[in-house]
Amino acid sequence: MTALNHRIAHATVTVTAERTPLAHQRVVVAQRSHAFRFGNIGFELIEFANGELSGTAVEHAQRLTEHWFGVFNFATLPFYWDRFEPVPGQPDTRRLRQAARWFTERGAGVKGHPLAWHTLAPAWLLELDNAQIAKAQVKRITRDVSDFAGLIDVWDAINEVVIMPVFDKYDNGPTRVCREIGRVPMVRMVFDAARAANPRATLLLNDFDMSVAYESLIEGVLEADIAVDALGLQSHMHQGYWGEEKTLATLDRFARYGLPIHFTETTLVSGHLMPPEIVDLNDYQIPHWASTPEGEARQADEMVRHYRTLVGHPSVEAITYWGLADGAGAWLGAPVGFLRADGTPKPSYEALHALVKSSLDGA
Amino acid sequence: MTALNHRIAHATVTVTAERTPLAHQRVVVAQRSHAFRFGNIGFELIEFANGELSGTAVEHAQRLTEHWFGVFNFATLPFYWDRFEPVPGQPDTRRLRQAARWFTERGAGVKGHPLAWHTLAPAWLLELDNAQIAKAQVKRITRDVSDFAGLIDVWDAINEVVIMPVFDKYDNGPTRVCREIGRVPMVRMVFDAARAANPRATLLLNDFDMSVAYESLIEGVLEADIAVDALGLQSHMHQGYWGEEKTLATLDRFARYGLPIHFTETTLVSGHLMPPEIVDLNDYQIPHWASTPEGEARQADEMVRHYRTLVGHPSVEAITYWGLADGAGAWLGAPVGFLRADGTPKPSYEALHALVKSSLDGA
Repeated sequence: MTALNHRIAHATVTVTAERTPLAHQRVVVAQRSHAFRFGNIGFELIEFANGELSGTAVEHAQRLTEHWFGVFNFATLPFYWDRFEPVPGQPDTRRLRQAARWFTERGAGVKGHPLAWHTLAPAWLLELDNAQIAKAQVKRITRDVSDFAGLIDVWDAINEVVIMPVFDKYDNGPTRVCREIGRVPMVRMVFDAARAANPRATLLLNDFDMSVAYESLIEGVLEADIAVDALGLQSHMHQGYWGEEKTLATLDRFARYGLPIHFTETTLVSGHLMPPEIVDLNDYQIPHWASTPEGEARQADEMVRHYRTLVGHPSVEAITYWGLADGAGAWLGAPVGFLRADGTPKPSYEALHALVKSSLDGA
Repeated sequence: MTALNHRIAHATVTVTAERTPLAHQRVVVAQRSHAFRFGNIGFELIEFANGELSGTAVEHAQRLTEHWFGVFNFATLPFYWDRFEPVPGQPDTRRLRQAARWFTERGAGVKGHPLAWHTLAPAWLLELDNAQIAKAQVKRITRDVSDFAGLIDVWDAINEVVIMPVFDKYDNGPTRVCREIGRVPMVRMVFDAARAANPRATLLLNDFDMSVAYESLIEGVLEADIAVDALGLQSHMHQGYWGEEKTLATLDRFARYGLPIHFTETTLVSGHLMPPEIVDLNDYQIPHWASTPEGEARQADEMVRHYRTLVGHPSVEAITYWGLADGAGAWLGAPVGFLRADGTPKPSYEALHALVKSSLDGA
């Protein structure tokens, strides 16, 4: 597989008792965890973490929990503004804090997603003028980044800025502001607010647009001296696995900015593929999207190739898979999970588990 | 048609003789020219302007000249670096100065195209390191913009920066530099050199990419305080007329930066259309692309609609059509001219002539 030398460090360890080196003793050296962030969303476990479930739902959640921590060490929690604060001034802070604490207590890092995005922005913004919307956006960021500092120190600060000012599916506050002030000032506003609220935070620019448009945005943002800590590259692959060549070419294009890369929102389906002519994945709505045996075998194979490729690239420091189990919560109802809707593991889970928990370099 | 109020100004004129107003005299008021720049390339007339033709070629060029000045008032001249300076230090300045003078003496403004571009960059750049290439680029700009100041005060300063650093069809100097330093610094380098050489110059950013990528580039450039005087929007329509809706939507997206727009490199074919699956138009190479009666009728109709749409938009201050006559010199051999290869006018010529030379508002 791809050389993993960039993931390996040498260390000389002296085992002591009362400060005296121990000779002729058996020592067990075992890997406990990874510096690499194997992430997944934690959306499905928020209710469980808050003790809101009962009966069989608890057992199901316990199975999910076991599988989640069986492979992953980095949780993304949802801060979609209209759901987080449906009524102005009444944010869902308590439940999200409990969920974040629940993950951190079990050893996982947590990322918040997102602080600013044109999708899932609250409708109540539409009653404000642009200056007021911008003010509400900054206030929301300041509040939430402060409230979670120490518990969540990684944020997808702003999502999909490339399309933000020209997004025309429906009217929304962030698009109005971004169209008026421009992308770079919008990014600056969001980053400045988040940085001030938590100077230790790792702040990401995150986008699904892998074209020269995202490059151009990044270059404008960096040239404006906005300190981006990492770049998020979304990679929903409902229309098929990108393959190693495209993945590496994409990584190389974005790695040239010298920033760490989070491969975010990555998914591989274990059923039929979405037809290639669909441009906006949201346009593909079908009543049931089944996970199939052939699809699961393909998914497992591609998952191993995908993770080997990403971990093999020196710029990638995190992968955030977008879903643990199939089911009602999955975006577009797509069977992208590592578990089936009933909670049983697909071959992809077993494959990734072996890869992550044995040794990634195959030794 | 679209209201042309933004093209019309009212003036009170007093006709005097020896400073005394003349009463009861007949006065002829006629439009002599347009403030609007109806542009076309002047590539085909450079040899003629330099007295390099003889025999029937002279007669052909005279016909082209007559037709060119019958409609157009703004010439684009070629400064493709590898043709302009095939041997380092031996630029084709004299011939281009003569051509520029020839156009200006006949009342046309002149634009130079382009000062920096990854295509048609000289091969001799490849022997230099990146710092040397950048230095050669600046030197070339300083020299040429200075040499032509007063004669050419409008420049497509940099062409197709969106794709410049990732252009991978062949190795070239500007791509190497742009990939290393980034798009915004590349634009700054070119604009700074051109501005210093001719502070009165109108400097354009010009691109064929009408997507959010060009928007993102522009926003980064403007945020970096690089003074762009006008935006060039390329519009080769070999795959079909955009139509009013797309044209206006595109104009509105780029008009929001408050800069004048030059609709550059615009073309409409009078033959069959290039198949829609072609992504890079350069990939479509056929031995002969005929102008047909049906195609010419369609081209004339679309030409009128296209010019009415553009002149009707308040941000557009120039249209640069990309070719006068069909023939060997036409890009891709496409029949995009207003004249056939034999120099006879197509219906599109008559239609545009009527539009430009009668009155654009139909009065």
